[in-house]
Amino acid sequence: MELFFLGTGSGVPSKERNVSSLVLRMLEERGTTWVFDCGEGTQHQILNTNIRPRRIEVIFITHLHGDHIYGLPGLLSSRSFQGGETPVTVYGPRGLKEYIDISLRLSGTHLRYPLYVEEVEEGILFEDEQFLVEAVKLQHGLDSYGYIMTEKDKLGELQPDKLKALGIPPGPIYQKIKHQHRTHLEDGRVIDRADVIGPAKKGRKVAILGDTRYLPDLKDQLKDANVLVHEATFASEEKEMAHDYYHSTVEQAATLAKEANVKELILNHISSRYHGTAIEQLETEARSIFPNTTVAHDFYQHAIERTQ
Amino acid sequence: MELFFLGTGSGVPSKERNVSSLVLRMLEERGTTWVFDCGEGTQHQILNTNIRPRRIEVIFITHLHGDHIYGLPGLLSSRSFQGGETPVTVYGPRGLKEYIDISLRLSGTHLRYPLYVEEVEEGILFEDEQFLVEAVKLQHGLDSYGYIMTEKDKLGELQPDKLKALGIPPGPIYQKIKHQHRTHLEDGRVIDRADVIGPAKKGRKVAILGDTRYLPDLKDQLKDANVLVHEATFASEEKEMAHDYYHSTVEQAATLAKEANVKELILNHISSRYHGTAIEQLETEARSIFPNTTVAHDFYQHAIERTQ
Ligand SMILES: [Zn+2]
Ligand SMILES: [Zn+2]
Repeated sequence: MELFFLGTGSGVPSKERNVSSLVLRMLEERGTTWVFDCGEGTQHQILNTNIRPRRIEVIFITHLHGDHIYGLPGLLSSRSFQGGETPVTVYGPRGLKEYIDISLRLSGTHLRYPLYVEEVEEGILFEDEQFLVEAVKLQHGLDSYGYIMTEKDKLGELQPDKLKALGIPPGPIYQKIKHQHRTHLEDGRVIDRADVIGPAKKGRKVAILGDTRYLPDLKDQLKDANVLVHEATFASEEKEMAHDYYHSTVEQAATLAKEANVKELILNHISSRYHGTAIEQLETEARSIFPNTTVAHDFYQHAIERTQ
Repeated sequence: MELFFLGTGSGVPSKERNVSSLVLRMLEERGTTWVFDCGEGTQHQILNTNIRPRRIEVIFITHLHGDHIYGLPGLLSSRSFQGGETPVTVYGPRGLKEYIDISLRLSGTHLRYPLYVEEVEEGILFEDEQFLVEAVKLQHGLDSYGYIMTEKDKLGELQPDKLKALGIPPGPIYQKIKHQHRTHLEDGRVIDRADVIGPAKKGRKVAILGDTRYLPDLKDQLKDANVLVHEATFASEEKEMAHDYYHSTVEQAATLAKEANVKELILNHISSRYHGTAIEQLETEARSIFPNTTVAHDFYQHAIERTQ
């Protein structure tokens, strides 16, 4: 499970940073990729990576500003052209369906895979064996959402040592023991799974927020997340500007990370006014409040480790 | 007056070629730039050139396939963000207005300059002191147009030698003589402009076509053009495929250039199946029919010279 940032800029593309998109890769976990936002040129950025559009399973759109959606029709079309066949679901605010429908229809685009567009409201979007995904409402002058992915805890690994000590030799019985709470052996014994597996693997929690003003109340929903991706369009001193333009400062993002007791903070959606040492300065500002902070850059990859 | 190719590929972007866009720069002639098609990433390509979006005066869309329009909302928005203030007119097939309106409205984009969208039909689009611009209908499975720009002839230069020989010393009177057919001098003489100016500067004719099947009948409208930009999605041997997909082969484009007696042919919209020596091969095929042919590549610039 890793984050792969494709566009970390704000508003318009620059030579340094493309407009917004990032990918949550779960090739090991579920063989698929989830995309968050899709600014213009996202498919071009993908050309320079080993990301495969056909692996895309879900696309989450945080809000409908152009720098977050203008790459969506192109990515959807190219995925079809390149042979993508599995369904894709796109989640996003009201209006998303009209935008996609009109763009595809007027351009005469016929996708060769099923496309589902779901307009979201605050709350649970979906839940399966692996994940619970929720949308939280942000404040950005138009509907903007953050997405919180909570991975479910996974069973620990079978401990062959313990099984062998019980005189059970390796074989198909091991899988049975792992997949049932209790297993009756042929010799009449009953094996309790809890006695022969290691500690559960704790699920991870990943929060990816769209553009927003500082919202201190989010701290409860973000509580203990492994990673928080938060916008930081402006430096700490630009509080007023951030408020006026419905954005956040570095200080605000770091404060929220601290209050929510997350493990790592990644700052995203950086204004093109900041370059080079100014970026280091942003990082320093954030770390003075929340030490485990990184300012993302295009093509930045970040593995999300499990905590025990 | 020069052509600047921004995207010369077909269908989907590749590392070598972006999707369609090219620019006709007329900084000397009218201080502005005209854009033809605007596939996704056109504004990104522009970042790597000295083209200024604020100079854009007209955008011509040949047809609504995604690889020709998905960069339009982004370019229009960024031009506003970057301070563009002068009006822009976009010409293109029916449906273009809905596409632009919906994309800008749903993304909450408010342009700071006047935008006019004109849905075209075959015939004259506009005429001013410098140019006559016409649309011709192509054959591409959906409405597709070619645009023919005919520059008007310009007066020749005043010949100071001839004026001096007539005993007229340099001064404001020279401008008068240039701007009227006849000028009455204070000494009673009448100067005929035709006697004191050099040869007229012949206007240029530039034809930029959208995606199309081979249309031999176009030769009359393209007659004697200085430059013809024609798609050549496929190699000469792929006639059938070209026909089925409503595209042209290299041979067809070259034949039309020859029949129309144009001066130069530039091949565009090259399928991503052709690379390296295969591109040279396409050029060789075309030149065997029409020698003055070039296969365009991204960032290819081509000055359009006047002929006397
Ligand atoms: Zn925004
Ligand atoms: Zn086309």
